[in-house]
Amino acid sequence: MKREEADLTEAEMQKSGIAIPEPDVAEDLEDLALGDDYALNPEYVEMVIDAADRGDGERLRELVGALHPADVADLMGFLTADYREEVIPHLAPESLAEVISELEDNLREEVLEATPSATLARALEELDSDDAADVVDYLEDEKREQVLAAMDESDRAAIETSLSYAEETAGRLMQREVLAAPQFWTVGQTIDHIRSAGDELPELFFDIYVIDPSFKPVGAIPASTLLRAKRGANLVEIMEPVTEITTDMDQEEVAYIFDKYHLISAPVIDPGGRLVGQITVDDIVGVIQEESEEDILALAGVGDAGRDAGVLDAARSRLPWLVVNTITAALAASVIGAFQAEIGKLVTLAILMPVVASLGGNAGTQTLAVAVRALASRELNAANAVRIVMREMSVGLINGVALAAIMALAVFAVFHDGMLCLTIALALVINLFMASLAGILVPLALDRLGRDPAVSSSVFVTFVTDFMGFLSFLGLAAIILL
Amino acid sequence: MKREEADLTEAEMQKSGIAIPEPDVAEDLEDLALGDDYALNPEYVEMVIDAADRGDGERLRELVGALHPADVADLMGFLTADYREEVIPHLAPESLAEVISELEDNLREEVLEATPSATLARALEELDSDDAADVVDYLEDEKREQVLAAMDESDRAAIETSLSYAEETAGRLMQREVLAAPQFWTVGQTIDHIRSAGDELPELFFDIYVIDPSFKPVGAIPASTLLRAKRGANLVEIMEPVTEITTDMDQEEVAYIFDKYHLISAPVIDPGGRLVGQITVDDIVGVIQEESEEDILALAGVGDAGRDAGVLDAARSRLPWLVVNTITAALAASVIGAFQAEIGKLVTLAILMPVVASLGGNAGTQTLAVAVRALASRELNAANAVRIVMREMSVGLINGVALAAIMALAVFAVFHDGMLCLTIALALVINLFMASLAGILVPLALDRLGRDPAVSSSVFVTFVTDFMGFLSFLGLAAIILL
Repeated sequence: MKREEADLTEAEMQKSGIAIPEPDVAEDLEDLALGDDYALNPEYVEMVIDAADRGDGERLRELVGALHPADVADLMGFLTADYREEVIPHLAPESLAEVISELEDNLREEVLEATPSATLARALEELDSDDAADVVDYLEDEKREQVLAAMDESDRAAIETSLSYAEETAGRLMQREVLAAPQFWTVGQTIDHIRSAGDELPELFFDIYVIDPSFKPVGAIPASTLLRAKRGANLVEIMEPVTEITTDMDQEEVAYIFDKYHLISAPVIDPGGRLVGQITVDDIVGVIQEESEEDILALAGVGDAGRDAGVLDAARSRLPWLVVNTITAALAASVIGAFQAEIGKLVTLAILMPVVASLGGNAGTQTLAVAVRALASRELNAANAVRIVMREMSVGLINGVALAAIMALAVFAVFHDGMLCLTIALALVINLFMASLAGILVPLALDRLGRDPAVSSSVFVTFVTDFMGFLSFLGLAAIILL
Repeated sequence: MKREEADLTEAEMQKSGIAIPEPDVAEDLEDLALGDDYALNPEYVEMVIDAADRGDGERLRELVGALHPADVADLMGFLTADYREEVIPHLAPESLAEVISELEDNLREEVLEATPSATLARALEELDSDDAADVVDYLEDEKREQVLAAMDESDRAAIETSLSYAEETAGRLMQREVLAAPQFWTVGQTIDHIRSAGDELPELFFDIYVIDPSFKPVGAIPASTLLRAKRGANLVEIMEPVTEITTDMDQEEVAYIFDKYHLISAPVIDPGGRLVGQITVDDIVGVIQEESEEDILALAGVGDAGRDAGVLDAARSRLPWLVVNTITAALAASVIGAFQAEIGKLVTLAILMPVVASLGGNAGTQTLAVAVRALASRELNAANAVRIVMREMSVGLINGVALAAIMALAVFAVFHDGMLCLTIALALVINLFMASLAGILVPLALDRLGRDPAVSSSVFVTFVTDFMGFLSFLGLAAIILL
C-alpha cells in the first residue's frame, strides 16, 4: 500500500544499464508511520515523543525524514508545543517549506516564529508562488520584511504581486508559473520550447495555454493531447476552449466552476484579459474542503478557530453566537411569561410546551440544511425558488400532521384529555409549517441580500420555532382548554 | 469571461495556413445563458420555457445546443417534468450521455426512463467506464439488460466489471482506461507508443504508470515530465513514487489521500497488486462535495433525498429523525413532569427552564460540529483525543460561566430574586459543561464503534442537553428556592 521503489530484476538492470537504487532505510519506518486508513499511527507519534524525551536527534531526523511533508504537518498537530520545538530543527531544509504550507493556521504561526528569517527565505524559494505567498501572509510585519529582503528578486516580486490581491480571490489562489504558447506555433515548436526552457517553467503543468499577440488566452491544450499530437500540427487545430478566471473572482466561485466543468487547471486573466497565471485543481480541492468546513461550523454557530486553537481562542470563537442565542431565548421565554396565569392553572402545559418548540426547531434545522446546501451548489436560485418554497411548506405540513398524530396518541395515553391532544396537535402543525417556512425563507433572504446564508440563519430559524412553538401551544391552550 | 474561439488576425491565418473557423452562432446565446456567477440565468430558463410553449423545436435545439452539458443538467433541474420531456428529444445524441452523467439522481432516473435503450447504449459508449457504469447502475433491471445487450462487447465488459465492485469504493470510482508503460522503456519509446496507440488510450491522462513484468505499478510520471524529458532517458530514472489505491478502499478514504498528498491521479490495484485502473482528481472533487453535503445534512437529521425529490420523498427523508426526536423530547419532558409541584408553586421556573436547555443545546451543537469536522479530516484521533476532550470541557466551563454571569444579571433585572439568579447561573454552568462533554464524547464514541459520527450524534447530544438542562435547573430550584 505504500510508495515503492522500482523493483527491477538484475537482468533488466544490466540490459538497461540502470544504476541499482540505494536501499531505502526509511522504507520500514514509512510502513510503521501510517495506518491502513493513511492517518498517522498513534504509535508512531509515541516513537517521536520517546526519541525527543531521550534527546536522540538522529532518531528524530530518521523518524521525521521518513514522512511525507503532509504527514509531518499532521504529526505537528498531534504533538504539544514543547515537542514541536524539539522536532522542527530536525526537519530537512528542503521539506520545511512544504511542511509549513501544509500546517494549520495556528500551528503555522508558531512554527514560523521559531524559524530564522534566512532559513525561511531559502525554504520559500522552493515553493510555487501561490503557496509561498500564502506562508508569507502569516508572518509578522517585521519578519515578513526580513524574509522578503533575503529572497531572490524575482521570487520576492511574485510573492508581493500575489499578496496585492484580496484574500480568498483567484489572484491569491493562482500561481504565476504558467506555460503559454503563441497561437501560430506548431506542436513540435511547443515541445522543443518545453524541452529547452527548463527551470523557467512550472515544475508540473496540466494544460498549455495558447495565447494571442496581446497575451490573451484563446485556448488550452492538455499535456496528454500534446504528447499524442503530430509534431506538425498547429496548436490552434488541437486546442480546446478555455474557461477563464478573473483575478478578482471569489475562491468559492472558482471552486464552483472547477467542479461544474471538471477542470484540471484554468488560466487566470487580469482586467485587461491578459494571462497572468493559472489555478490548478489541487488548490481547489483545498478550497472545497475549507468552504464546506466553514459551512458546517457556521451552521452550528462556531466562528473561525482551528483545531489547534487554544482553549481561550476556542471559547471566544463560540461565545458570540451563544450570547445572541441568550437574547433570542429570552425573547421566546417572554412568550411563556405572558401565559403565566394559564400555566399556573394547568402545569401540564409547562411539560408539553418544550416538545412543540423542540420539534419545530429540528424541522427548521432540516429545511435550513437542505436550503444552505442547495444555495451553495447553485441548485436553488430565482428560477426555481417559488417551487422549492412551495415544496418545503408542503413537507412542513405533511410532517406536522404526522407528528401531530403521534403526539396526540402519546398525550392521550398519558393524560387522557382529548382537548389537550387537540391543542398539541394543532400547535405542532402550525409550528412545523412555520419552521419549514423560516427554514427556507431566511437563507433565501440572506442570500438575496448578498450575505452568507450559512452564517446567521440558524439564529433566526431557532428563534422563530421557539417563539412560535410557545405561542401556538400556549395560545391555543388559552382558547381551547381554559 | 466565456469560452472564446481562437481570435487570429487574417495575416496570421494566411501565414499559418489555418482554415478560418466557422462563425459560431451559439456564441451570443452562451453569453446570455450564464450569469456573472456562472449559474444559469433565470431569463434563459424562461426562454427555454417560451420556446417549449410555442412548440418551436428549432429554437429549443439552438438554446440547448449552446449550453455545456453541465449547464443542460442544471437547466433540467430548473424545469418541471413536463418541460423536461419537451427538451430531452432536442439534445444532440453525443451530449446526451454527458448530460445524463451530470444529472442529479432523481432527475437521472426520470430522463433514463424516457430515453430508448438503443439511444442510451450509443450514448454510454461515449463515456469513460466509470461514468458509464454510474449511469447503468440507475437503470431498472429490464432496461439495463437491453442497454448492455445493445453495447459493444468491450464496453459492456468494462461496465459489468465496474458494477461488480461495491458502491462508494475505489473500484466503482476508477476508470479502466489507463496508460501503463513497462519499466524498461525509454521516454522516446513511451511517446512513440502514445502517438501510435490512438483510441485505445484514455482520452485525457495526467500520469503514465510504470509497471513491472507482473503488472504492478512501481512509479508514475506526470505527462508534463514526459514532455520535458530527453527521449533517451529511462522511465525508471524520471519516475516518482506512487500512492496506490486498492479497489475495495472507501471513496471517502480515497478523497482523503488525494487531498492530503495533492494527487492528480492515482493507480488502482487489485488484491494481487496488479494495475487495474486509475482514479483522477475530477472524480474526487465530486466525492468531496458529496461527502461534505452528506455531513451537513446528516448533522441536521436529513436522510438521503436530493433537491429534486418530490414532496413525499422529501418529507419521508426527514420524518425518521423527527420521530426519534419526539421520543427524546418526551423523555426530557418527563423530567419537567417530575417537578410539576415545584412549577405549580413558582411558575417563573417554567419561563426560565427552556433558556437553560436551549443554550446547552447550542453549545453542544457547536462542539459537535467541531468534533465531526476534525474526525472527518483525521485531525482528531487516538493520539490527541484526551487533549481535545480536556479542551472542550474547559471551553464548556468558560462559556458556561460567561453565560451564567449574563443570565444572572438579566434575571435579577427582571425578577429581583438573588436566589433565582444563583439557581439559573449554576444550572447554566452545569449544562454547558455537560453539553461540551456530550458534544465531543458522543461523536468520538460513534467513530470508535465504526459508525459515521455525523449521522446520529445530534439526537444524543440534544437529548443530553435538554434532559440535563431541565434536571439541573429544576433540581437546583427545588433545593435552593423551595
